[in-house]
Amino acid sequence: MEKEKQQQKQKHYGFLLLTIIFEVAMLVIYGLWMDYDTSYNQDSGETDERVDLFYYFFIDVAIMIFVGFGFLMVFLKRYGYSSAGYTYFISAVAFQWAIVTNSFFAQANDSSWGKVALNLEVMIEGLYAAAAVLISFGAVLGKTTPTQLLIMTFFELIFYSLNYYIGFLKVQAVDIGGSMIIHAFGAFFGVSVTTVLTSRKETKDHKLNGSSYTSDLFSLLGSIFLWIFWPSFNAALAEPGAQYRAVINTTLSLTASCLMAFVVSSIFHHGKFDMVDIQNATLAGGVAVGSSADLVINPVGAFSCGLAGGFVSTLGFSYFASKITKIFGIQDTCGVQFLHGWPGIIGGIASSIAIARAKNHRDPYLDEKAFHDFFPRGDDQPQIQFAALVITLGIAIGGGIITGAILRLTTKNAKKPFDDSEYWILPTGENEIGKKEMEMKKIESEKFEKDGEKDLD
Amino acid sequence: MEKEKQQQKQKHYGFLLLTIIFEVAMLVIYGLWMDYDTSYNQDSGETDERVDLFYYFFIDVAIMIFVGFGFLMVFLKRYGYSSAGYTYFISAVAFQWAIVTNSFFAQANDSSWGKVALNLEVMIEGLYAAAAVLISFGAVLGKTTPTQLLIMTFFELIFYSLNYYIGFLKVQAVDIGGSMIIHAFGAFFGVSVTTVLTSRKETKDHKLNGSSYTSDLFSLLGSIFLWIFWPSFNAALAEPGAQYRAVINTTLSLTASCLMAFVVSSIFHHGKFDMVDIQNATLAGGVAVGSSADLVINPVGAFSCGLAGGFVSTLGFSYFASKITKIFGIQDTCGVQFLHGWPGIIGGIASSIAIARAKNHRDPYLDEKAFHDFFPRGDDQPQIQFAALVITLGIAIGGGIITGAILRLTTKNAKKPFDDSEYWILPTGENEIGKKEMEMKKIESEKFEKDGEKDLD
Amino acid sequence: MEKEKQQQKQKHYGFLLLTIIFEVAMLVIYGLWMDYDTSYNQDSGETDERVDLFYYFFIDVAIMIFVGFGFLMVFLKRYGYSSAGYTYFISAVAFQWAIVTNSFFAQANDSSWGKVALNLEVMIEGLYAAAAVLISFGAVLGKTTPTQLLIMTFFELIFYSLNYYIGFLKVQAVDIGGSMIIHAFGAFFGVSVTTVLTSRKETKDHKLNGSSYTSDLFSLLGSIFLWIFWPSFNAALAEPGAQYRAVINTTLSLTASCLMAFVVSSIFHHGKFDMVDIQNATLAGGVAVGSSADLVINPVGAFSCGLAGGFVSTLGFSYFASKITKIFGIQDTCGVQFLHGWPGIIGGIASSIAIARAKNHRDPYLDEKAFHDFFPRGDDQPQIQFAALVITLGIAIGGGIITGAILRLTTKNAKKPFDDSEYWILPTGENEIGKKEMEMKKIESEKFEKDGEKDLD
Repeated sequence: MEKEKQQQKQKHYGFLLLTIIFEVAMLVIYGLWMDYDTSYNQDSGETDERVDLFYYFFIDVAIMIFVGFGFLMVFLKRYGYSSAGYTYFISAVAFQWAIVTNSFFAQANDSSWGKVALNLEVMIEGLYAAAAVLISFGAVLGKTTPTQLLIMTFFELIFYSLNYYIGFLKVQAVDIGGSMIIHAFGAFFGVSVTTVLTSRKETKDHKLNGSSYTSDLFSLLGSIFLWIFWPSFNAALAEPGAQYRAVINTTLSLTASCLMAFVVSSIFHHGKFDMVDIQNATLAGGVAVGSSADLVINPVGAFSCGLAGGFVSTLGFSYFASKITKIFGIQDTCGVQFLHGWPGIIGGIASSIAIARAKNHRDPYLDEKAFHDFFPRGDDQPQIQFAALVITLGIAIGGGIITGAILRLTTKNAKKPFDDSEYWILPTGENEIGKKEMEMKKIESEKFEKDGEKDLD
Repeated sequence: MEKEKQQQKQKHYGFLLLTIIFEVAMLVIYGLWMDYDTSYNQDSGETDERVDLFYYFFIDVAIMIFVGFGFLMVFLKRYGYSSAGYTYFISAVAFQWAIVTNSFFAQANDSSWGKVALNLEVMIEGLYAAAAVLISFGAVLGKTTPTQLLIMTFFELIFYSLNYYIGFLKVQAVDIGGSMIIHAFGAFFGVSVTTVLTSRKETKDHKLNGSSYTSDLFSLLGSIFLWIFWPSFNAALAEPGAQYRAVINTTLSLTASCLMAFVVSSIFHHGKFDMVDIQNATLAGGVAVGSSADLVINPVGAFSCGLAGGFVSTLGFSYFASKITKIFGIQDTCGVQFLHGWPGIIGGIASSIAIARAKNHRDPYLDEKAFHDFFPRGDDQPQIQFAALVITLGIAIGGGIITGAILRLTTKNAKKPFDDSEYWILPTGENEIGKKEMEMKKIESEKFEKDGEKDLD
Repeated sequence: MEKEKQQQKQKHYGFLLLTIIFEVAMLVIYGLWMDYDTSYNQDSGETDERVDLFYYFFIDVAIMIFVGFGFLMVFLKRYGYSSAGYTYFISAVAFQWAIVTNSFFAQANDSSWGKVALNLEVMIEGLYAAAAVLISFGAVLGKTTPTQLLIMTFFELIFYSLNYYIGFLKVQAVDIGGSMIIHAFGAFFGVSVTTVLTSRKETKDHKLNGSSYTSDLFSLLGSIFLWIFWPSFNAALAEPGAQYRAVINTTLSLTASCLMAFVVSSIFHHGKFDMVDIQNATLAGGVAVGSSADLVINPVGAFSCGLAGGFVSTLGFSYFASKITKIFGIQDTCGVQFLHGWPGIIGGIASSIAIARAKNHRDPYLDEKAFHDFFPRGDDQPQIQFAALVITLGIAIGGGIITGAILRLTTKNAKKPFDDSEYWILPTGENEIGKKEMEMKKIESEKFEKDGEKDLD
């Protein structure tokens, strides 16, 4: 007991020390390097318009980050405080730090060093980066300590901005909705971290690695918020004129993946639906159409992305998830590879196909000039998309392995996986654990049946 | 056991077959018939503005559909997966299909056949149609299978668009917030379906037809989201200049119906409040002011709509609901007739009165020209509103009876009413039903009292 | 039993009588005194823009009021119906009544009596006033009857508008995000009411004065919605050009208070986090930066406000809360003094410092003219901010004592503190209280441990 308290204290000091150092560093960096974007001058007529246009999307994306991702992960029955609470914490950290890492590489690209001009676009990019971190969080969910999450966030964002710099600023791929840069990156980074960091034995078949009726409803609520606001995610930084296409394409794709999730879930579960599929694979359309959301893929193209994304994603959750855990020992708690990873790859490939088609068909929407505005690498753009996908996967997996190794060498994993009681004060009674195990088993299983049995009367 | 599995499989094949056929049909129809609205050209300066204006309302209405209606129906204690999950499913189906049916009748009206130009207005109309289907879903909630919901959605939207065509495109009634076309239509269609389809004996007094403490809180959350965004529902497609009136009128009306719900609930429950009233009747003001939301009804007119809607709605839930079930054998699970049906009729009548007043008083806001712009049938508009109300009720009830009959002849109702376990994989323990019924009853009733008893100490 | 029913009836008549009188009065006042803002004429091109600009913020603030504050207070395990339900009720009352009290003092200030022109700014001001009332509600949460809440709302808004009139219209302090006028006012008014009205003995250590696992998740959801939309709260009525600064400053401040809440919570709870801190103190940055949100405080200034607010707030919840209850007998259920009171005072002081700095440094953003536009009292503005803070605290505490005394003399407090069953119909079984107390204690404590024990297997 004494020893345990001692250890708790040590973890505690590590967390405090790192967080305080981080926040002091942020104070200094923001003090020296950040300023308001002076082009939003109070005398300029265009200010309001910008507030309108970007603020709207900023809030929408924030809802996705904090409510959407946060509550989607509340599905674990005894890890809800942690899922939503750490989302709060690491998103705040990620937002502050990503503005720094993004700005560093952006200025490196332009070779124009100077004060960062904070505006809503910069802040939307900060939220996008936080999304990538939260996706990775989904892979390690329940197995890491807050200190580890802080360290992971720190390193992940360096790799994230590096990937953005190489694959998108230098190589000039296009990826308006971040299928590659956000979703595939976050998923494969997280899966790599968890593969290096956690042993399957610790957590496989852990009894708390599951949902309860109430936790599943919170998770579904998170999922639905993600679904509704996904068009904003894909359209936020699209060019005027292409923005409405991003909205229409994303919406159509999402309705298609929603239907596909129900169909494939029903196939694999003999006529029943699995809530895991419905919470997750319904969203795959938003990922799969991401890289080509603002392109002229036509409604039927958007449908096809959604159907492909929903199919592959549900297949992953329903069929491959258990196989992958069993064979490769990879335990991806939220299945982020199936929601963000595979559909993200589909999204990258779809963008390549869409651009190749646009090139060949010379779509009436895109005259020669518009084509080159849209596709900075012109006729090479389709191949460039593939290159960026490969780069992204490489940096994500490599960065994840490095980060996982750093964590493994310097920190300890959570002692009580999938259990809030290690790091949270729980309501009275909830952390006096382990007293009457045997009686409890009975009570519990009885409780689960309490309502169900009624319809047999 | 074997036989049961066999039946599950059959239902399963039916659901899969119909959903896949539907989705293939959508692929073909969208492929051949749908295109982007080319007036949103990327070179046009007006694009942004349109994205701004309508996208904002589009998202607001989507929140109402998926979070609002979806979670409002989570009040059933063991049907939350189904309530929110099927909302996801049938709204996606309804959205895709309504764009087709709406476009068909719109082009029939204009006699100008050609590609459908997808834009945000078309998509908002798609969400409106999904709202009507969800309202009907509320009436049959807990009693139908996913296959039946799919079939109901398919037929309902044909009748919905037909009613829109006759009552609003041809007869030219005005109904900006859809009191008649959406709310009254959806409610009476759903009540008709359930009257034909389900026998009272099956479901009356079913033990799972009730709420739990947690399910009621989710439902209240859904209700509050509906309440907040209702001004957007009524204002989304209003003309510039009338839009702000729609917002103000709807807000005032909603605050009035909120107060009225508390008052009437307290009267009928001897000084207590019934959560059913608070979840539902608080919203009646949004329905009751819908048809006249953009008109110059003055703040006091908006108040009156809200008070009338809130009064009638709470009266319905608190007093008439049980009577109607008992006498007529109609079991409307969510009481949609009291939230959407009766207040919808009030809304239609209110619009007629408001237009007659505007005509007689020649409101300063409406000069002769504006009056005729607003009221396409000029001095006949008040009577036209009544005509549209009667047409709507006729098509809703007739269409509901036909659809109910089709469902009755071709499908089987849910075997386990109000019970997720028939179609959902539940968390461990939750579908091993019926083992220890007697003990369970005790445990359960004890559990409910667990916190309450404390204040007697 | 009979006597109890009799009393229930009496409370019932009081509530009905007062609510009906209030609503009739509103009908008359709105009928005679309220009209649409005719500057939103349907022919004016500027209408749309205004609907755009303000409607967006109006909805955002409404989400904060009804979802944010409402569900933040659902943390009490057996008072969720009341917390969210009364929020619905008193916010509707407050909105209607605040438009009246605000308009009265605004016209008194202009000495221009006439019809009130309802528009979205007036309505946003109405929501702001409702926020102040909800903050006070947080202090008395669980201890008052609906009748008392209605009376408190009525008087509080008179004092609220009076304070706005004196401190902001006459004395001309600036307070864009309402740190003083909304947050500090609401907090100290509520604390004063509860100090006069409720005796500590009644409610201290009450067994229902605590959270459950599920209630805490609902509360965290409310908290997160408040956090996301707080930039809108602080920016809604800011001038074009200053609005984007209010958004950026508030966002940065909130991320800082979020981190600080985790740090200080961990310090006081030996390496664990307390959900109370995370639900509340994370938001303190929004309050602390409120009065200076639209000023040129620079990113580092925003950070500092957030860190200070988060620090003081978590210190309050983690350390001072129990001390204050013990020593002074003040029981502030939600700890509103720590979330809104103290950070509100910090906000007022910060605005004074920020303005003094702007004056001395002649910030490039503010030329002489702009400085005087921004700060109506010119070089005296820093002192004026202090004066307004003192006036606000005086009126809040004085008004709260008067209102508490009125309530104490005319009404009775809730008989069953923190218990929904006094005023709500609960799901079957939930109000049959007190039958098997002893067995229940056992069942209950066992239930809490049901999941936790699993990881010891």
